[in-house]
Amino acid sequence: MLIALLPGDGIGPEVVAEARRVLEALDLDLSFEEALVGGAAYHATGHPLPPETLALAKRADAILFGAVGDPTCDTLERPLRPEQALLALRKELGLFANLRPATLFPGLEDASTLRPEIAAEIDMVIVRELTGDVYFGEKARHITSDGRREGYDRMSYAEDEVRRIAIVAFEMAKRRERILCSVDKANVLETSQLWRDVVNEVAADYPEVTLTHMYVDNAAMQLVRNPGQFDVILTGNLFGDILSDQASMCAGSIGMLPSASLRAWSGENGMYEPIHGSAPDIAGQGKANPCATILSAAMLLRHSLDQEAAAQRIEAAVSAALVAGARTLDLGGTLSTRAMGDAVLAALN
Amino acid sequence: MLIALLPGDGIGPEVVAEARRVLEALDLDLSFEEALVGGAAYHATGHPLPPETLALAKRADAILFGAVGDPTCDTLERPLRPEQALLALRKELGLFANLRPATLFPGLEDASTLRPEIAAEIDMVIVRELTGDVYFGEKARHITSDGRREGYDRMSYAEDEVRRIAIVAFEMAKRRERILCSVDKANVLETSQLWRDVVNEVAADYPEVTLTHMYVDNAAMQLVRNPGQFDVILTGNLFGDILSDQASMCAGSIGMLPSASLRAWSGENGMYEPIHGSAPDIAGQGKANPCATILSAAMLLRHSLDQEAAAQRIEAAVSAALVAGARTLDLGGTLSTRAMGDAVLAALN
Ligand SMILES: CC(C)[C@H](C(=O)O)[C@@H](O)C(=O)O
Ligand SMILES: CC(C)[C@H](C(=O)O)[C@@H](O)C(=O)O
Repeated sequence: MLIALLPGDGIGPEVVAEARRVLEALDLDLSFEEALVGGAAYHATGHPLPPETLALAKRADAILFGAVGDPTCDTLERPLRPEQALLALRKELGLFANLRPATLFPGLEDASTLRPEIAAEIDMVIVRELTGDVYFGEKARHITSDGRREGYDRMSYAEDEVRRIAIVAFEMAKRRERILCSVDKANVLETSQLWRDVVNEVAADYPEVTLTHMYVDNAAMQLVRNPGQFDVILTGNLFGDILSDQASMCAGSIGMLPSASLRAWSGENGMYEPIHGSAPDIAGQGKANPCATILSAAMLLRHSLDQEAAAQRIEAAVSAALVAGARTLDLGGTLSTRAMGDAVLAALN
Repeated sequence: MLIALLPGDGIGPEVVAEARRVLEALDLDLSFEEALVGGAAYHATGHPLPPETLALAKRADAILFGAVGDPTCDTLERPLRPEQALLALRKELGLFANLRPATLFPGLEDASTLRPEIAAEIDMVIVRELTGDVYFGEKARHITSDGRREGYDRMSYAEDEVRRIAIVAFEMAKRRERILCSVDKANVLETSQLWRDVVNEVAADYPEVTLTHMYVDNAAMQLVRNPGQFDVILTGNLFGDILSDQASMCAGSIGMLPSASLRAWSGENGMYEPIHGSAPDIAGQGKANPCATILSAAMLLRHSLDQEAAAQRIEAAVSAALVAGARTLDLGGTLSTRAMGDAVLAALN
């Protein structure tokens, strides 16, 4: 099986290197090919997503992605910015389903700013739609007819876009606690009203799942007040961006949490990445926590390569390393990126 | 001075009644007129914002608003829903500046789900734009040319809309710690890029204020990780809706926090409301915390009636009542809405 490695910018290369070491230690029949993406690709080739990179991503069985984002690119015109590579990969590969688990790892109760008894309850998956919404609608800055500068973006969802992501969320809920909360802003947005209508229609096929609807402002509050109430959250691209980062911080460390971007409930051509960004301020210093990327590799094995046992071996090794006291800086420890990778490798059995 | 009382739905009437008692106890020259709004107005007159209510709001020197929201209205067509009355009042009165302070009251450290030492640091004002963004753009549900149901909403900001709210935020920061964080999603949205450009232009007039920009996903994370870093947050209507509810919950109780909606830095025709909603599940039972509305009355005195001393008297009374142990159910106590109002009145001096 071919895995495309797209390390990207900032701490991306460091954390992807550790995840690769873990994958290689598993004795599976995997081959790896690496390509440039983001600011790194722009600086080398003049474009954040060179054609070779996109071709590799399409050819590979799965993609392990590091991070993109480079402050030296902030003044470039939008199509040349690093983030566009990520958005284009999602769109080109049709990766509409973004799964973002947020769990508190045993032993990390102290890493959360939430009270330990509240944080300990966190165990949810956020299912975020990833190829629609205001991210991909018509957008521009222009001068209006009365001479004012204006920026605009079209937010929208069509029924088929909502239906396919709702199905992913219901299937996920079926395999978990069977509690699904769909988050929208239907009291203000027509996009949300359509979303809510279609989610209700899909619910008819899943009588075993309890569905509720929550406004996004309330959801942001409930994630702080009582995050343990959530099992699966289903939401759109923009609200999912905000809520999943919030939820991950509630769970203690953005350095621990993986994600999967899929084009169907099966994982063909899936892309896996830590939910943290490129963290340019600590890049190249061996300070980053590689666990989120290592756990993303586990999701890759599970969803794209159908290697559930190997996925669980990785997850168990990360847990064991943490229980044994391995901690990077973000977790209040002193281990380097490489040393944390070593700790996970040592715990692999 | 004429104060319009718009109690609205759910717990609105109960909490507005307590705030009125506090205002009446101050011996200022105030008169009150009450009108229906929201679901209450719809049920009585067939419209959530009857013309008499709008006329009163325009005539009054300031408006004290309770809450709107009524589950029995959820299936009405959008223009008849209670929330539309609130949106229409904001738009008709030109109330573009929404000030939402979030502070932890001494003695309420235990009410927050954040660790006490983190929660104790919270002292910020969120300045939310209130009459633009995706809230008021063109929106509809329709059938696309290829026969699919679609919902859409146009998100936009024009330069003058951004400039006037940015000025409010810079003026606010000037009077506080002089630290301003503008929150947007400029890596994806053109609306945000225009927002960022204009905020940077306004910054030139405020060299004494330190301005930073933060993406909204990161802001949602930072509000959990280290909320004490924020002094003034400036943001658009949609992001402000989400972040201000999140911040208020970090500060312990949504039942404690007031808000002001203004049409300029001066408070002419301002509207004041608790940030909590109508809470239909506890309506009419005397369980609601009236403090957010009482503190909204204090903001009304400060911003619209130029009665700073009276505003501070109310705020001191609320603090003193809390320090003396007065607690409604949401704060872990047993006091009724009326008894909490009594406690604040008793502490007024
Ligand atoms: C980098 C950015 C475009 C991206 C997003 O907003 O989707 C990121 O925040 C994420 O959540 O993966
Ligand atoms: C009721 C609703 C329309 C409103 C909003 O979204 O602005 C409310 O959530 C608020 O924040 O005042």
